[in-house]
This record gives sequence, structure tokens and C-alpha cells, in this order.
Amino acid sequence: MERRGGRRSDELRAVRIQRGYTKHAEGSVLVEFGDTRVLCTASVEEKVPAFLKDRNQGWVTAEYGMLPRATSTRTDREAARGKQTGRTQEIQRLIGRSLRAVTDLARLGARTIQIDCDVIQADGGTRTAAITGAFIALHDAVSRLLLGRTIAESPILDYVAAVSVGMHGGIAMLDLDYAEDAACDVDMNVVMTGSGAFVEVQGTAEGRPFTRTDMDGLVDLAERGIRELIARQRTALRAV
Amino acid sequence: MERRGGRRSDELRAVRIQRGYTKHAEGSVLVEFGDTRVLCTASVEEKVPAFLKDRNQGWVTAEYGMLPRATSTRTDREAARGKQTGRTQEIQRLIGRSLRAVTDLARLGARTIQIDCDVIQADGGTRTAAITGAFIALHDAVSRLLLGRTIAESPILDYVAAVSVGMHGGIAMLDLDYAEDAACDVDMNVVMTGSGAFVEVQGTAEGRPFTRTDMDGLVDLAERGIRELIARQRTALRAV
Amino acid sequence: MERRGGRRSDELRAVRIQRGYTKHAEGSVLVEFGDTRVLCTASVEEKVPAFLKDRNQGWVTAEYGMLPRATSTRTDREAARGKQTGRTQEIQRLIGRSLRAVTDLARLGARTIQIDCDVIQADGGTRTAAITGAFIALHDAVSRLLLGRTIAESPILDYVAAVSVGMHGGIAMLDLDYAEDAACDVDMNVVMTGSGAFVEVQGTAEGRPFTRTDMDGLVDLAERGIRELIARQRTALRAV
Amino acid sequence: MERRGGRRSDELRAVRIQRGYTKHAEGSVLVEFGDTRVLCTASVEEKVPAFLKDRNQGWVTAEYGMLPRATSTRTDREAARGKQTGRTQEIQRLIGRSLRAVTDLARLGARTIQIDCDVIQADGGTRTAAITGAFIALHDAVSRLLLGRTIAESPILDYVAAVSVGMHGGIAMLDLDYAEDAACDVDMNVVMTGSGAFVEVQGTAEGRPFTRTDMDGLVDLAERGIRELIARQRTALRAV
Amino acid sequence: MERRGGRRSDELRAVRIQRGYTKHAEGSVLVEFGDTRVLCTASVEEKVPAFLKDRNQGWVTAEYGMLPRATSTRTDREAARGKQTGRTQEIQRLIGRSLRAVTDLARLGARTIQIDCDVIQADGGTRTAAITGAFIALHDAVSRLLLGRTIAESPILDYVAAVSVGMHGGIAMLDLDYAEDAACDVDMNVVMTGSGAFVEVQGTAEGRPFTRTDMDGLVDLAERGIRELIARQRTALRAV
Amino acid sequence: MERRGGRRSDELRAVRIQRGYTKHAEGSVLVEFGDTRVLCTASVEEKVPAFLKDRNQGWVTAEYGMLPRATSTRTDREAARGKQTGRTQEIQRLIGRSLRAVTDLARLGARTIQIDCDVIQADGGTRTAAITGAFIALHDAVSRLLLGRTIAESPILDYVAAVSVGMHGGIAMLDLDYAEDAACDVDMNVVMTGSGAFVEVQGTAEGRPFTRTDMDGLVDLAERGIRELIARQRTALRAV
Repeated sequence: MERRGGRRSDELRAVRIQRGYTKHAEGSVLVEFGDTRVLCTASVEEKVPAFLKDRNQGWVTAEYGMLPRATSTRTDREAARGKQTGRTQEIQRLIGRSLRAVTDLARLGARTIQIDCDVIQADGGTRTAAITGAFIALHDAVSRLLLGRTIAESPILDYVAAVSVGMHGGIAMLDLDYAEDAACDVDMNVVMTGSGAFVEVQGTAEGRPFTRTDMDGLVDLAERGIRELIARQRTALRAV
Repeated sequence: MERRGGRRSDELRAVRIQRGYTKHAEGSVLVEFGDTRVLCTASVEEKVPAFLKDRNQGWVTAEYGMLPRATSTRTDREAARGKQTGRTQEIQRLIGRSLRAVTDLARLGARTIQIDCDVIQADGGTRTAAITGAFIALHDAVSRLLLGRTIAESPILDYVAAVSVGMHGGIAMLDLDYAEDAACDVDMNVVMTGSGAFVEVQGTAEGRPFTRTDMDGLVDLAERGIRELIARQRTALRAV
Repeated sequence: MERRGGRRSDELRAVRIQRGYTKHAEGSVLVEFGDTRVLCTASVEEKVPAFLKDRNQGWVTAEYGMLPRATSTRTDREAARGKQTGRTQEIQRLIGRSLRAVTDLARLGARTIQIDCDVIQADGGTRTAAITGAFIALHDAVSRLLLGRTIAESPILDYVAAVSVGMHGGIAMLDLDYAEDAACDVDMNVVMTGSGAFVEVQGTAEGRPFTRTDMDGLVDLAERGIRELIARQRTALRAV
Repeated sequence: MERRGGRRSDELRAVRIQRGYTKHAEGSVLVEFGDTRVLCTASVEEKVPAFLKDRNQGWVTAEYGMLPRATSTRTDREAARGKQTGRTQEIQRLIGRSLRAVTDLARLGARTIQIDCDVIQADGGTRTAAITGAFIALHDAVSRLLLGRTIAESPILDYVAAVSVGMHGGIAMLDLDYAEDAACDVDMNVVMTGSGAFVEVQGTAEGRPFTRTDMDGLVDLAERGIRELIARQRTALRAV
Repeated sequence: MERRGGRRSDELRAVRIQRGYTKHAEGSVLVEFGDTRVLCTASVEEKVPAFLKDRNQGWVTAEYGMLPRATSTRTDREAARGKQTGRTQEIQRLIGRSLRAVTDLARLGARTIQIDCDVIQADGGTRTAAITGAFIALHDAVSRLLLGRTIAESPILDYVAAVSVGMHGGIAMLDLDYAEDAACDVDMNVVMTGSGAFVEVQGTAEGRPFTRTDMDGLVDLAERGIRELIARQRTALRAV
Repeated sequence: MERRGGRRSDELRAVRIQRGYTKHAEGSVLVEFGDTRVLCTASVEEKVPAFLKDRNQGWVTAEYGMLPRATSTRTDREAARGKQTGRTQEIQRLIGRSLRAVTDLARLGARTIQIDCDVIQADGGTRTAAITGAFIALHDAVSRLLLGRTIAESPILDYVAAVSVGMHGGIAMLDLDYAEDAACDVDMNVVMTGSGAFVEVQGTAEGRPFTRTDMDGLVDLAERGIRELIARQRTALRAV
């Protein structure tokens, strides 16, 4: 399978991270993985969910949405249909878990950082782009809390980023676009920290089940891809 | 009241119209009125609503949404709350009516153009920016239908654009930003065509009721503003 | 266009205002504009919405409904469908705003007057009849608060009433019934106070957009109609 | 327990049946049992529910609602809350069953008569008043079908009416108003036909369970009450 | 009509009551009436509904559900459809009322016993089986409260059980299975206490209305059936 | 960490598979993993979802539910709350995908097998027990289709079963019960076929992220566990 733009099987799409993309949010990042564009905002709210009342710790949670015409044919607006799909809920739970895995919730204090990931344009990998961008939005919101001395010490313990990998005709491929994702037999999303530990590994056989060898190859490839994404995150954060 | 950036009372904010903003939609426009940014897409669907079945005409309809952190403090996601607010429904009905007023639905044929207006960043006037941008998105979708010879003659009969005006301390002001809108006693949204006829005039007393003289002054100002907006639309469309 | 019953173009339909129509509500008014009949009740509740907590002022809000067979063909019951239409929400917001425009919410004290407007029979102009009748229901509820010395001074600052006007074949017509409303090119709802100031002006082109001259003529006609409606309100209130 | 207005324990409240109360519905009846007022309309629809497709028979079904301020303190509007209570659903199922028990659905042909019972003012016995009034509305809608020769033979096989009875301090009482209903230990609703057969008998112990003797006394009283209600129905129908 | 297994018209189906069926609930009973199997659990919650706040009494309430394939053809899952049917709500209200009729809510103290009745397999009489089993689950939960000295005196004042009866071809039949229920002209559910007083009597004509004599015969039969069910409840409770 | 009942870290809980547990469903299996009990039914429906229309293939889909008191403290009933949680939707999508991975949908023909997994009692691993039991229910439904010659060849291509594994204090543990699951740092669900290929691998760091070595150990352990579960499935299916 020839990849668009002659991309190698182990090559990421063009990654772009724009900080301060909108003006109201405490953190606001437009992340692009090729033609996939996700706006990630972080909002600080001085309250915690009921289940954390009087627990002296904070919370990080996420919501995910897709503009109706982010996709190749129009998708019904969830607000108009009156409920979020199972897919939406699965993704927003994943984003929240991934960010909490690198956050010291006690250091955050009794406040919530609400992440919103809204897909402006979709071309595969929206959830992995969302996690990668949301980390930067979270970071920027935390920086503002540190700057305003609302908190004394950063609750962010490590970097976190995510990538998709898949098997196509026996070849493991990194960072699938929509057409590749549809063609692959196996689809895996991996979330990994800066120190190389895993937060999530979700491998799914879309067609034929996959072997242990397939899985090992996919995880290797995802590890390399995420290291590279984290390098881009570092660069983006250096750029003040 | 000093306006931000020293703007005169009869001056529009900086207007920017970017066509082809996203790749999937038949028409895709990012419109900016100052810090208000709305993504307007037009999607062509080869079907009509049930009430137009066998009537040999098309339909233009609109949906409106706001990203949760488009606003200064986060607004609950309508998809998560499970329903659209009255305000959202009022706005999307207004956008649809405004576009249909300049569209010959018979010429469109038995198809629907679905407009989506999603507010990326809000700073007052989101509905007027949405109408102004949606017209361009509609135009681009129609051009594609003409180009593909799906339809023979353009169903677009005239330009249409919209602006807000308000009274503050006895002064009529054009194109209110959020802070101005909150401070005004009267708020009026006007939708007008290229030939200077009105599609909608909605004046609301937020505080004190307004006189007939106030109203006349506001409509005058809106007319001048919309003529200028339509000039910008013409420029944007010339730029292929 | 011949009007039903030989009505002149600038003539209201028969207006009837019955106070004390039902026994439980603090204010209960059946208002009729021709065959349109709306039951308007005002209920006093000793609490305020959350956004007014500790603000030492009251609130006036409205809900609107239509009995399923108020209309010529049966309309689905909103309670059975599980949600209110956009039209319903638009109307109930309009009724609430109109009444608040003539109410001093501070004088009302920390309580809510909840207006319910339920259409028993519909024949055009249900929202304007509702506003006109709701004002009387509000007045009666306030009188009871004054009588019981719950409040010291009336929070009602002025009368308020509403009427629809429309253009048909170049002629401006007052107080449209359903058939006229369907035939008109322009439909305008105007809400005005006893002192002749406007609370709302909502003009909509149903077919062809309207000129500034059309608009001026419609507003003139609406002004005259509302003055007459307010005279009827005065008569109704004198009748103890 | 002294009854309001010196009513005897076996005496109905004042019953009033007004036909043709609103103009659009095929049958439209305002029924009053004392201060309880229910508007019952019958709408003919030329279709049947899916489960009767190709069965060559009709259907009679009912919906029930209560205006928010029909009650002594305001009740939340079901359309605003987005769902009907269990009580509402129980009542509308009961009304539908009661009317179907005296209707030959085959004779009705493949059409639905949709009954709507909306409580304008509530003072106990709304469901029994609704059934009693709905029968007349159904009758009027059927008369129109016969008159228009849409159907050849009346599908109405018998009269049907309903009344509530209750035990208070060992005394059986007929046609309870709201205060009596709240004070009773046992509450029974009985639906009976013109020929004296039962469609529904629903006895409920609100406080202490009731004996077989109590039950027999209550049913006796209900029978006498319903015979009287059916006499009123006959009178109402004679009045053209 | 020959009954399945040669059952006599006045004979119950095989009744089986298994206590302690699941491990988490304070009371957990699987009740079987022939092939109808209902799992009834009682959960003690140390709170009361809002309307009982500061009233120094408890509450007993019930919810009812049916597994999708408890029935002969699959029934849509209510959680997936997003609302409970009217039938479900009617049944859960009946179960709650039946249990409260034999409970001294003041003795229960400010706590709620939440009953859940879930139908594992349905073959007619699910609501009567549910009431009969729920009483045992309630009893077991109360015993645990007494044992733990949370309450001093049992709030349970009497036994309660329920059975269905019906008329088929002029014959009264006890404890209808699904096929019998579908074939009967009259269907009656009776809820009775250990002392022979009635909590609920609900007779419904499915086809032809029923006479007073029919009703008397059905109630007689139900009385005998419930006495037998209460004997089974006593046996089940003796078995510790 | 001492496991309940002295279970070894690589030991499954007692597994029990009862076929024909209820009478209506085409396949009906009660599966137990220790105290976790899930009723899995398979229902054959002679229709396919809209997206498969005219595609000449079938579908296998699943729904998942939990009885309110399956859990140690009562969980709100999803039908009463009016929506399914994200967790429920995530699980039912997983069950459906797992079964489809071993089913030849073309051989199934244009029909749907609807799987329902309802948790009667929960003690960890409900989703893995559900998949393991649902496979048997699917198998039984398919056998009935083969027996009735509705289909000619079995669409079931392989066995499929699932198990959870987790890391606790550096030790990998098989088939976690609720208490173990809550204590573990990493939680992994693995779905594998009879031929040892993976359908799903979902590893989640609940606390600390996990290393590649941890992951490899967990997958090894899951493989061994699933082989044993499939042996139990084989035994259950041999028992006619």
C-alpha cells in the first residue's frame, strides 16, 4: 500500500501544534496530524465533582466532539440528536484517563481542569491527536495557575502523547489516516509517557484476529512514534 | 463609551472571510467579525425533508453550535446535556430563514443544503457573523453544483448579510462586541439583501423600551453596515 | 384580500379578556383575539432562579404550550414527544422578556411570578394574544401581593401589549388570523408599552424581502393596534 | 365529614357537559364535575398504528395532560421536564381502554380516533370526568364520520362513563373532590357501560386495607353514580 | 380450555421462593410462579426522598424491569430506548403501594427500602409474582435491620401477596399464564394481606365488559389463591 | 496479596456454564466466573440494520446491562435514568466486536443475532464473563438455525473467550475479582480466539503507567487463562 505523499510505513504525518489558538481558555491548542485538526482547550474550574468532595484533590476530565462536517460525509450533530454516541463517550473517557495518568491530582488542589477536544477536520487518528494536543493545553493551563501562584508546584509529572498503528498486508504502519485505518486488519491506539511507560494499549482486530508477533511489532512501532511526538511537544513548549 | 481599538460608533470590526477553510465540505468558510470566529460549512445532501416530498424543490436549513470554551467562561456542551437551548434553536431557525430568503428553492432541485455554523470563538454578534459567512459557504456549494452540471441555473437570487446594532447612552452603535452588547439598552439584529430589502429585523429592549426615533436610527445604521459587509462578500467571492 | 367578517385592514379582531377564569392561580385570564383563545395564569412562587440568588430581586418568566387539538390538524403533544419545539421556546422567551420590560424586579422582592400561556384554540396571533393576556394575569397576581401587603409598592411600571401585522399584496394588515398569516409575505410581531415605547419588533420576510417603506407602514399600523389593545386592558382592569 | 355545599354522601357534584367547545376538533367537549374541568377532544386520523397494519380495523387511543396551574400549587409542565409521569401514562391508558371497550374497532375502519383530555382546572376525579367527557367527544367525531358517509354503521356499541368512590370514616362517598380524595382510606375508580357491565374496577387502599364488605358497598355506590352520569350523557347527546 | 399440565381452574401454578439468591442485597429472593421467574431484591438506603425530609419516617419504593429476552420475542431494552414504558411505571407504582400498605413507615425510621423486581423469564403474572416475592425480600432486609439493632421493632404489620384471575368462556381461572391471559375476556389482579383485607383490586375487561356476578366470582377465587400464596410465604420464612 | 480462597496468581476462579437457562431465547446461557454471574441470551431476528440493507450478510450485535443490585451498593437503573452510561456502551461494543471476529457474516445470511448480557451478580470481570458466555449462546442459536436448515453451514469460525489480568505489587494476576481489580495498578482485558489470535487487548494504567515487560507478562498470563476458558467452553458444548 502506497501511502499518501510517499510516506514511509514508520513515518508520522506532518505534526503541527499551535498554542494560544483561541483567547478565552486557560489553555488552547490546535493540533494537526496531517489533515486531522483538533482544537484542545483546558478550562480551570474552582470546584470538583461530587465524588471528590472534601478529598483535597483535583480532577482532570475531558469531553470530545466532532463538528458535523469534519467528516467526509456529514455526521449528525450530537446536540441535535440529544445524545452522545458510544464512540464519543469511549474517546472522552480515554482522553481523561490518559491525562490523569501524568497528573498529581493532590498537587492540583480542589479544582477541575476540564479539557475539550473538538475535531475541526477529521482524517483518522482524532483521538490520538486529541490526547497529544490536550497535554499541551493542560500544561498551559497549569502554567497559568503556577504563574498566578494559585498552586505552588506543578502537578504534571511527565509528558504523555498517543499514536495509532495498524497492520496492512502484514506490514505495521504508523499514524494511520482515514483511508489507511479503513483498510487495516488491526488497529491499535497506544498512549505512552515521556519515560516510556504505557498508559493505554488498545488493539482491536477489525477483520482477522492478530498474532502475538503482530502485536509486538505494532507496540514497537507505536513506541518510536510516540517518542517523536513527545519531542514535538517539547519543542512546542520551549517556544513560550 | 470608548470602543475597543478606538472604533467609531458606526464602524464595523475587522471582517475576514476565509473560503475553503476545511477540506470535506462543499462550502467551508471561516468568518471573523473582530474576535468572533465562526466556521460555516455547507453540505449538499441528495434528499429533502419529508414535508417537501414530491414537491420538486429543495431546502436550505441550518444548525448552530458553540464550542464549550468559545466563551469567556466555559458553557456546558449541548450534546452532553442532551438538548439544545432555546437560544440555539432560535438562532438556527434565523440562519435558515435568512438564506432561504435569497434562494430559489425550485431551481435548487430536490436536494438539501445543510448549513452548519459552529462558533470557534465568541465575542458578540455570532449570529450575524454566521449568516454573513454562511451565505458564502452556500454560494460555494452552489458553484460546485453548477460546475458539475447538477443544476443548470444558480438558485441564489441575491446577497444576504447581517449585523447587530444597539443603543448605548443615546448613541446608536454598529456591530457590537460582547462587552458592548451587555452594556446596551437595545439590541437589534438586522438581516438585509444586496438590493437593500430586509429579511429580518429583530429589535429587543434589554433594559428600557425604545422609541420609534431610536428604532429608525438603528435601522439606518444597520443598513449602512450591511452594505459594507456585502461589499466584503463580493470581494471574497471575486478571489476565486 | 377580503378579510373574514368584512374586517378592515386596520381593524383588530374581537378582543375579549376574562379575568378569574380558573380558581387556583393568583392571576388567571382567558384572552381571545377572534377565534384565538389563550389561557394565561400567573403563579407566585416564593423563590428565585439560581442566577438571582442573594441579589434581592425577583423574576418573571413564562412557559407556553398548545393543546394538541388547538390547531386545525392535530399537533403532537410536546410532553409525549419529550421535548419542546424551537418555536415554543422562542415564544416563551419572548413573553417573559416582554413582561420583564414593564416590571421593576427589585420591587417584586425575592420571588418569581411564573406565567403559563396555554393555547386552547389557535387561529393566528397566539403569541401576541398571550402577551396581552399575560399582562393582566401578572397584574392580578401583583394586586394580590399588594393586598396581602407582601409587597409595598407595585412593581408594574407600565402596560404592555402585542399585536401582529403583515403585508399582503402591498397592503399592511392588522392582527392576522391563521389564513392571513399563511398568505402574507411579511409577518411582524410588535410588543409596545402604554407609553408607546417598543419592547420588541420582529419583522420576518416569509416570501419576498420587504422594503424600508413597508416596514415603516407596518410599525405605524402596529402602534395604532396596540394602543387600542391597551385601552381594552384598561377597561378589563377597571372592571375589578 | 361534612361535604362542601352540603352534598350527601351518595350525591354527584354538579355535572356539566358542553359540546362543540372548540372549533377545530371533530369532537370537542368541556366536561365539569364540580370544579374539575376537562377539555376532551376527538381527532380523526386516516391511519392506524403499526401493530394494526393490514388488519382492517381502527383504533381509539387517548392522551391526558394537565395545565400547570390547573392545580392548587403549580405543577411542572411535562413538556418542559421532557417526560410524562407514570400517573399521566396510567391515566391515558385507562381512558383509551375504557373507550375501546364500547367501540367496535372493525366498524371504525382503518382509522384512528385520537382522544385528548386536558385538565383546565383540577379538583379531584379528573380521570373519571375525562372518560365521561371523552365518550361524548368520541360520539361526536363518529357522528361526523357517519354524516359524511365515511363509515356506514356506528362503531359505538354502548355508553360508558366513570366515577370515583371512597371510604371515609366507614362511610362510602360518591364522586370525591380533591380534599375528600386526600382524606379517604380507600379510593376506587369504576368505569361502567350503559348496560351496567364493568370495564374497569380499580380499588386502592391509600391507608388501611379494605374489607370485602367495604368493596361491595363502594361498587354499589359507583353503579348508582354511573347510571346517573349516563343519564346526563343521554341528555347532552339529545341536545343535538 | 384445557390448562397446561392439567391444572384445575382454581389451582395455582408451582410456586417456588428462593431466599438469598444473590449475595449483595439485604434481601434477595427468586420467586417462580410456574415459568415466570422474578428476582426481587431489597436494598436499604440511609436516606429518604425529598418529600419526606424531616418527617421522621421511612419509605418503601419499587422499580420493575424485564430482561429483553424474558419474553417469547425479544422486547427492546428500556435503557437503550431511553425511557420506561407506561406499563413498567404502572407496575412499579403498584408494587410500591402494595408493600407500603403493610409497612409502618414511622417504625422504619428515616431510611428507604428500595425494591427491585427484575423479570428473568416471563410467562404471565409477573406483577403478582413480583409483589409476592418482594414481600419476602422486604422481610429479609427488615430482619437484618432488626438483627443489627438499627431499628427496634419490625415495621412489617402483615403479610401481603398477589395473584391474577380471569374469566375464560364463563369460567373463572386462577393464576393465569401468558397464553391464558391473552385468551381471557377479563383480567383481574388482586393484592391482599394476611388478614384478608384488600390493598388493590384491579379488574379490566380486555374484550367484553364483565358483570357484577363475574366480578364477585373472580374476587372469591383470588382470595383463595392469595391465602395459599401467603401460606407459601410463611413456609419460606420459617426455613430461615 | 492473598487471594480469596487461597487462589494462585495464575488461577481462574470457578467457572460454570449453564446452557438453556431460560426458555424463550434461541440461546440462553448463565455463565459464572466465581461470584460474577451473567445471563447471556442470543435472539435471532430476521432483519438486518439499515447500513447492511441489500448487502446479503448478517450481523451480530450486543447489549449489556446490570441489575441495580448486582453490585455491592445499589446502582441506579439505566432505564429510570433514561440513558446508558459510557461504560455500558463501551462494553456492549466490545462484546459485539469480539463475537463478530469469529463469525462469517455472509454465511449467517440476512439476519441479526442479538446478544443480551445481563449481570445478575457482579464481582469483577463482568465483561470477560459476558464474552465467554455469549459465545456459547451464539453457538446455540446458530445450532438451531442449522438444525432448522435455515442456514446450510455454520458461520462460527472459531472459539472466542476473554479474561482480565492485572498487576498488583509487581505480580501479574489472572481473572481479577472486584476487590483485586480495585487494588491493581494495571488492568488488562484480553479477548482471544481458539487458535490463539487476539481480537482485543485493552491495557489500562489505573495508577502508575506500566512497562513493556509488565505488558508482556500480562499478555502471557491472559493467553494461558483464555486457553483454559476455551477448554471449558468445549466441555460445555459437548454436553449437548
